[in-house]
Amino acid sequence: MTSTPKYISGDAASIDEFVDKFDVFLLDCDGVLWSGDHVYDGVPETIALLRSKGKRTIFVTNNSTKSRDEYLKKLTNLGIPCDKDDIFGSSYSAAIYISRILKPPQGKNKVFVIGETGIEQELESEGIPHVGGTDEAYRRDITPEDFKGIADGSLLDPEVGLVLCGLDFHINYLKLAHAMHYVKRGAVFLATNTDSTLPMHHDFFLGAGSVHIPVVHATGKEPLQLGKPSQAMMDAVEGKFQLNRARTCMVGDRLNTDIKFGIEGKLGGTLHVLTGVHKKADWEKENPIAVPSFYADKFSDLRLAEKE
Amino acid sequence: MTSTPKYISGDAASIDEFVDKFDVFLLDCDGVLWSGDHVYDGVPETIALLRSKGKRTIFVTNNSTKSRDEYLKKLTNLGIPCDKDDIFGSSYSAAIYISRILKPPQGKNKVFVIGETGIEQELESEGIPHVGGTDEAYRRDITPEDFKGIADGSLLDPEVGLVLCGLDFHINYLKLAHAMHYVKRGAVFLATNTDSTLPMHHDFFLGAGSVHIPVVHATGKEPLQLGKPSQAMMDAVEGKFQLNRARTCMVGDRLNTDIKFGIEGKLGGTLHVLTGVHKKADWEKENPIAVPSFYADKFSDLRLAEKE
Repeated sequence: MTSTPKYISGDAASIDEFVDKFDVFLLDCDGVLWSGDHVYDGVPETIALLRSKGKRTIFVTNNSTKSRDEYLKKLTNLGIPCDKDDIFGSSYSAAIYISRILKPPQGKNKVFVIGETGIEQELESEGIPHVGGTDEAYRRDITPEDFKGIADGSLLDPEVGLVLCGLDFHINYLKLAHAMHYVKRGAVFLATNTDSTLPMHHDFFLGAGSVHIPVVHATGKEPLQLGKPSQAMMDAVEGKFQLNRARTCMVGDRLNTDIKFGIEGKLGGTLHVLTGVHKKADWEKENPIAVPSFYADKFSDLRLAEKE
Repeated sequence: MTSTPKYISGDAASIDEFVDKFDVFLLDCDGVLWSGDHVYDGVPETIALLRSKGKRTIFVTNNSTKSRDEYLKKLTNLGIPCDKDDIFGSSYSAAIYISRILKPPQGKNKVFVIGETGIEQELESEGIPHVGGTDEAYRRDITPEDFKGIADGSLLDPEVGLVLCGLDFHINYLKLAHAMHYVKRGAVFLATNTDSTLPMHHDFFLGAGSVHIPVVHATGKEPLQLGKPSQAMMDAVEGKFQLNRARTCMVGDRLNTDIKFGIEGKLGGTLHVLTGVHKKADWEKENPIAVPSFYADKFSDLRLAEKE
């Protein structure tokens, strides 16, 4: 498992051999296909090539800010046509986990959301009621009345039984105080993902993990996270796509999410690409988080297989 | 040091003996004198009694939201007359540390603030320039232009050489992103205090530590904190008040800040009161953070000494 990963860039035979091993490619998005709104060169063509060879490509992303519908729009705009069913995000994973595994009882099934519309839309697609999130009522300064009402419970919704945190660009003290107090009162504490950073503009910003860590710090409780590398997400992906794990490869740029996700899910292989967060030095150091089975300079190097 | 603390409530002789050991009492405020805006019964009278016995009372607080002037107003309103010079807050401590110890060079001496007016006023009292903080320009949603300008540095102030974080009720993604990027580019990372919670309305909310932990999480860097239990604060208190540590007692409700502060500062004693965060069980468990030398149910129990 921790043997040296095979480098496949630049060698058409190696790439061909690699591609032949798999029927399904699970593709991370940020750092693999694009950075922010900038799609990497050759990515649409590479995906088209894999499909032309009968491979299935599934987009598996931890970014919770977009729903599958929104991802569909983004992928199409970037020249990567696909179906909504090819997309699997951490918000969708969380919504499925709540509706199909947790099955919270009526009257205690409302979710307090820290996050953007992606989470809300996926909760709605599973018929799960929610509060917080993008509601303007929570996008404001906290007042003395809020402090009082949160402390005595009069401003807390008695039907909230879960707190679900994702990336929220509108995070504020009022939302954090609500989440903190719901968790303190026993709400199930979930996170779409816990990535500490978010790649953007060839740099990094605060990821979902950094946005909800105040709740962790103030309550002493850790959320159950439902994005990569959580195997709850792998189980959901497998259940939906009926994939053969031995013939499936996870492609990603982060060892602690993507590569760990593939290894712990006992997939046939993992391909690390060097266009995102982690570099070669990250798995070559002592006690690396995870070591991929293959690596390439970039995802579009798989196009070399085209020349066969 | 870790012997059993002496319980002094209810026994006038014990209290009298305790009070006689000290000339100076360093008093924590939240959880000792008051909770939020509710002053505990008998507190003003207890302070008056100590003063009538020739004791000096100094208010040493980690709450960074108020400046000394604002504390002076609050203390006066709550029936505790005092001088500005009797007040020592973590914002003041941080401002003194920057101006007198760090002495950042001209052109790199601007402080990016996460916090309220308390920090800004104390920085100004030491002549330190600052940005961020309560400036309305930072109290808004982050935009695509912000992401770009922060990433390429064009929206960052080249004169910022320090980031100082305290409790900020107006925390948002924009401020956190600025702080993160200044720290990533080498700014000195300071915190007024790192208390994870804030006692309020007989409950707890997010403290300064929970408000700036996103920056810690996203950068992997820890701030130097200048409130209790930092001995930088003790050195500053000693320097200002010329106190004899052996004849000084720290009174507080938190083991990890107040009591640790007094023990590490080698004060003559520490008095823990049970009206705030930590209870008896917290120092009686295995490997407690700190063990006080005395404890009382409440600060106003010291009034029993009056009857002598």
